Amino acid sequence: MLSFRIVVLPGDGIGPEVVAEAVRVLQTVSELSSDFELKLESHQFGGCAIDSTGEPLPSSTLKACQEADAILMGSIGGPKWGVNAKVRPEPGLLTLRKTLGLYANIRPANLASDSLLEYSPLRPEIAKGVDMIVVRELIGGVYFGTRKEQGVAPDEEVAWDTMIYSVQEVQRITRVAAQIALAADPPLDIHSVDKANVLASSRLWRKVVTETLKNEFPQLKLDHQLVDSAAMFIVCNPQKLNGVILTENLFGDILSDQSSVIPGSLGLLPSASLAGAPSVPSADFKPTSGIYEPIHGSAPDIAGQGIANPIGTILSAAMLLRYSLGLEKPAKAIENAVRKVLDLPEAGGLGLRTADLGGKVGTKELGDRIVDIL
Amino acid sequence: MLSFRIVVLPGDGIGPEVVAEAVRVLQTVSELSSDFELKLESHQFGGCAIDSTGEPLPSSTLKACQEADAILMGSIGGPKWGVNAKVRPEPGLLTLRKTLGLYANIRPANLASDSLLEYSPLRPEIAKGVDMIVVRELIGGVYFGTRKEQGVAPDEEVAWDTMIYSVQEVQRITRVAAQIALAADPPLDIHSVDKANVLASSRLWRKVVTETLKNEFPQLKLDHQLVDSAAMFIVCNPQKLNGVILTENLFGDILSDQSSVIPGSLGLLPSASLAGAPSVPSADFKPTSGIYEPIHGSAPDIAGQGIANPIGTILSAAMLLRYSLGLEKPAKAIENAVRKVLDLPEAGGLGLRTADLGGKVGTKELGDRIVDIL
Ligand SMILES: CC(C)[C@H](C(=O)O)[C@@H](O)C(=O)O
Ligand SMILES: CC(C)[C@H](C(=O)O)[C@@H](O)C(=O)O
Repeated sequence: MLSFRIVVLPGDGIGPEVVAEAVRVLQTVSELSSDFELKLESHQFGGCAIDSTGEPLPSSTLKACQEADAILMGSIGGPKWGVNAKVRPEPGLLTLRKTLGLYANIRPANLASDSLLEYSPLRPEIAKGVDMIVVRELIGGVYFGTRKEQGVAPDEEVAWDTMIYSVQEVQRITRVAAQIALAADPPLDIHSVDKANVLASSRLWRKVVTETLKNEFPQLKLDHQLVDSAAMFIVCNPQKLNGVILTENLFGDILSDQSSVIPGSLGLLPSASLAGAPSVPSADFKPTSGIYEPIHGSAPDIAGQGIANPIGTILSAAMLLRYSLGLEKPAKAIENAVRKVLDLPEAGGLGLRTADLGGKVGTKELGDRIVDIL
Repeated sequence: MLSFRIVVLPGDGIGPEVVAEAVRVLQTVSELSSDFELKLESHQFGGCAIDSTGEPLPSSTLKACQEADAILMGSIGGPKWGVNAKVRPEPGLLTLRKTLGLYANIRPANLASDSLLEYSPLRPEIAKGVDMIVVRELIGGVYFGTRKEQGVAPDEEVAWDTMIYSVQEVQRITRVAAQIALAADPPLDIHSVDKANVLASSRLWRKVVTETLKNEFPQLKLDHQLVDSAAMFIVCNPQKLNGVILTENLFGDILSDQSSVIPGSLGLLPSASLAGAPSVPSADFKPTSGIYEPIHGSAPDIAGQGIANPIGTILSAAMLLRYSLGLEKPAKAIENAVRKVLDLPEAGGLGLRTADLGGKVGTKELGDRIVDIL
């Protein structure tokens, strides 16, 4: 029996509440299976770690993450550790991404169920059928290039950042996008997004994406979009970008957040950040390390009330099984259970949706129902 | 009588058609007034200039633009001068912006009339009342920092661009945003957009915007948004950003295009690129140089058919009168005429809208009606 070590980082705000439900779901699929077992352990990360240790990413947490097969995260941050705080959670997040080499951020944006169409800010005829997966390069570009702060010599009145990409960095993220496109049947189209009419790093990006796909994945369809025009399409014609949106770190930050509001509630969407191509089960199989987390924030305003939507975290757990552990079957089972719960007719005024979707069900009850279905 | 010299750059595709109507509108307000006269002259710029002179921005055109009080532009580019062409129009545009010192790009996004709500990709209740003005820094940031292409020594496998801002560059664009906010009654709120949780240039941006407004315009309300979260709001709650969105070059490129699809047709929206704060009429009044153009592209697919929407260009002409020439009255008159035309009940199957808004009226007829109303 395969045994996997999963590190859990509940984080701040609603993080611990939503993570608790995803943990129950993982424990359930682990108990139900005779092929694998999951060993879960919790560690401190984010604002709570700042409070207890003075730093967002204590070395014991980093070490546990490095030794884990995969990491499930809640959400971090909050006003207590905001812009004016001396120590903030963000650097911890960026260090964790960089140290684990998590270069591939994967963010699907789709409506888990047509019954959710009414929550989209887009007209239903435009939102219906939206099915995009943003594949964002996560440890390169302007996030990790050299920079100079204002007030630093020689030119104190100036600040700058460097947006930098190497051929190898673009190749490897292109391969992840291609693997994801190929996992679908028929394979998904790839829309590469850049600003090649202005930026040198984008011209390199466009050239390397084009060549890598042509040489290694000639069966995939590729087009190129400028980031400004991609941002327009995501509002007025998102289906034009159905498939895989492949882009660099900063554009991916913007476009993945922009697309994530189409389904109407951030509470629904999962994400994965991987250190390599998704795992493919085989004899000499080795898990691909990754962090899995809902895309929503720590929502301190509703923390502790038991009303947060756990679905984004539960679907993140499904991605963890699929991408890090190569366990497609239990991943699909979780996704189907989520879809079922969302589509169940609302019963006796109780409803099967959390408050963000106009329902009255609590975090734990929703988790219960998903566990029951499994 | 004041006399102003206006350079007209019709450009490519539908550019000449839409510009022709805006020119008629300008000639009409000039004839109707005894206070000012407009002297218009046409020059080549863009793809048409590449075809006839080998370069997008011939020196005669640049010289005329430098001597003009203001510039009215159509649209440039097209597949003929696309990504693979040896000479492309974009560098001409960037040179023109830089040479004329056009550091302030102003892009309103609003629904000229509630009767257009049905064309918005957003749900009517979300689109209704959207009224944003993006003020984008246009000649700084990553567009004009040093860069290195792939294939250039020493590290040929790498390409980079520099996102750079100086205190003075951020001060002057902040002042323009403040002037625009103050021109409204009550003054508009300012939403400054950056990525200060990651970028040094954004931290400078945030600090300078905060200080400049606090010291020079303490009466204005300011908040700060991260670019990823601003991109979300523009889709799910754009009214949260009603007022002035003040941002740097690259973020402004993305967010202004994203907001521009809210009104349902790109054909409706104008833009201004200014070399200083908007002109304020006075005794020693000097026009502020600027380029005024619709935000839509050259739309080669419908060029020459006489069906393009001239409203974006006509509203750009109104901005020209207001911002460069300090002529508020004729600017307002044009804007009112446009609103009237859009709200006229459709008459006898003909309609008063162009094809992009589901109507049947041609470019010239729409221009006729606006001239009539004036
Ligand atoms: C918190 C911030 C540094 C981070 C980013 O910009 O990458 C966040 O926006 C994200 O997308 O995970
Ligand atoms: C053509 C391109 C260089 C330009 C830009 O990015 O500034 C365009 O997108 C614009 O916004 O005017």
